Amino acid sequence: MSRYWSDIVHRLVPYVPGEQPVLAHPVKLNTNENPYPPSPRVVEAIRRELGDTGEALRRYPDPSARRLRETVAAHHGIRADQVFVGNGSDEVLAHVFQALLKHEHPVLFPDVTYSFYPTYARLYDVAYRTVALDESFGIRIDDYTMPNGGVLFPNPNAPTGRALPLDRIEALVARNTESVVVIDEAYVDFGARSAVKLIDRYPHLLVVQTVSKARSLAGMRVGFAFGDAALIEALNRVKDSFNSYPLDRLAQVAATASYEDTAWFETNCARVIASRERLTAKLETLGFDVVPSAANFVFARHKDHDAATLAAKLREREIFVRHFKAPRIDQYLRISIGTDTECDTLAGALGELLGR
Amino acid sequence: MSRYWSDIVHRLVPYVPGEQPVLAHPVKLNTNENPYPPSPRVVEAIRRELGDTGEALRRYPDPSARRLRETVAAHHGIRADQVFVGNGSDEVLAHVFQALLKHEHPVLFPDVTYSFYPTYARLYDVAYRTVALDESFGIRIDDYTMPNGGVLFPNPNAPTGRALPLDRIEALVARNTESVVVIDEAYVDFGARSAVKLIDRYPHLLVVQTVSKARSLAGMRVGFAFGDAALIEALNRVKDSFNSYPLDRLAQVAATASYEDTAWFETNCARVIASRERLTAKLETLGFDVVPSAANFVFARHKDHDAATLAAKLREREIFVRHFKAPRIDQYLRISIGTDTECDTLAGALGELLGR
Repeated sequence: MSRYWSDIVHRLVPYVPGEQPVLAHPVKLNTNENPYPPSPRVVEAIRRELGDTGEALRRYPDPSARRLRETVAAHHGIRADQVFVGNGSDEVLAHVFQALLKHEHPVLFPDVTYSFYPTYARLYDVAYRTVALDESFGIRIDDYTMPNGGVLFPNPNAPTGRALPLDRIEALVARNTESVVVIDEAYVDFGARSAVKLIDRYPHLLVVQTVSKARSLAGMRVGFAFGDAALIEALNRVKDSFNSYPLDRLAQVAATASYEDTAWFETNCARVIASRERLTAKLETLGFDVVPSAANFVFARHKDHDAATLAAKLREREIFVRHFKAPRIDQYLRISIGTDTECDTLAGALGELLGR
Repeated sequence: MSRYWSDIVHRLVPYVPGEQPVLAHPVKLNTNENPYPPSPRVVEAIRRELGDTGEALRRYPDPSARRLRETVAAHHGIRADQVFVGNGSDEVLAHVFQALLKHEHPVLFPDVTYSFYPTYARLYDVAYRTVALDESFGIRIDDYTMPNGGVLFPNPNAPTGRALPLDRIEALVARNTESVVVIDEAYVDFGARSAVKLIDRYPHLLVVQTVSKARSLAGMRVGFAFGDAALIEALNRVKDSFNSYPLDRLAQVAATASYEDTAWFETNCARVIASRERLTAKLETLGFDVVPSAANFVFARHKDHDAATLAAKLREREIFVRHFKAPRIDQYLRISIGTDTECDTLAGALGELLGR
């Protein structure tokens, strides 16, 4: 606390990201990273931009990330002016709160969801109201009919992994026309259907994606928003009032190259999905209830064992999973899908801890 | 314009960065980039982090950029908790406006200064008042005595290049204790004295720096704030409510390596300074008034020739300089210092345009 702080600083509740352990060989299943490296084309593109001397690095990057936007637009069959690029989908979401969600009525999002949302709302003084998920952590779109300044949720939802069918999303969007509907698709490639195809039909639909999960580029910080050009313009106006160049030169070429290798991306998604189903079966054998997941993580609880205790005991073995001390979910573990070997190590350790 | 925009979006006046021409060989003297490449250690560090497969890129970067902060702290002889790291000094300044400059009284900055400052103020609804520079574009610290929510200026100032002696800065800081004083030192290494050494004595002094200019890393987006731990905490609270990971893995290792090669940095600064003095003499021979510069650019006007016209005619020859259509300075050109060859090309073209 300091008298030099702006008032807002006192009220903030910063987001706490998953731990980044400094260990030689942790089994790191706590931040939903992809267990496989990015496409070799990504490495090639970075090497090319770097050159022998790093000469290119002395120059500012393209502030509008034109080539990246064009590449991603072509991938999705949309126009480049329907694409916003930011420093990871977290930065994109921050700009969304400031540019599109601050209105008379509160923003609506689920009570159990990405825990960064209330943090953004406090940062920009955006009123919000949480809407309870049903008992099996499903989103009921009929609960989102009250006047609102925007509707926001991930699909699949985090940290539950549950997906909402695309026709349900479209029904909600078709009905909620007075404010923007934001679908946060960080995990969409692991089993849900994207709403990107709907943006031409609904000028108030915004879809957010990232290269951090399915494209194995969490280390490079690139995220997107897709929507009507007027929504994208709002985001660009905020971005250009904040930081002209949020993506460095290497991040831009890395993300671009990733979209030029669809086969790599699809193969890795399929591997992660197969490992998820395999791990789910093992966890069930160990007596866990596992929420049906369409993401690269599973959300599981054991009726006889406290989740925080299990997480702490796994941590002693240098196995990291995520536990949220939050209402409704404090008996759950969120376990990222690693390689089959990593999943087996986790399942083996849980078996020992449970005495099985 | 769209009814889905937040109110603030309508009021924004986005910053316009200097043009990034898409040409094979422009003489690019418009965005104050360094004409020399970064240290070979930077290239090595990026290659090492990348490895053969880019395996590291699938993992999130260190959200606190600990190693980078420790390295830069050691370089300046301060502690790591006195260092804030952001995505370029533009992002750092944005967080400064939100975290430290929003108070009852307006922030003060010069009438002629970095044109991003009023843009930030609008983004965060921070009241500001501009204070006129003297007739030779000098900052008079006695003009900054009114009640204020903060005092902010670059040293050397932009786009004038004029530096304020460190004892004047300390006098202002010693007197202005009710609010934060922010010294934006983007260009300090080309001839001014840094205020970093004063942060231990003044808990309300914040110094902002960047790797974009003297360290030839504009393409990698890394900036810093140095100050009392309480000021840095405010910035971290805002950053952690906005984006946990604003610096990707390659940016972190690149900036760290740059601070491990002081000789490279000092040699290039000396070369730029020598070229600046050489270009200044040439411009004066051509009849320009040149403001004495302590930066990697000069600010110059010709009494017989309109600055906008000169800039446009240079542009036709693929020579890019910056012209600001703004009160008091619309007859000036801001010319970044390139290699001697680039400076000669510019001076030759100006000679022809002026008929000399």
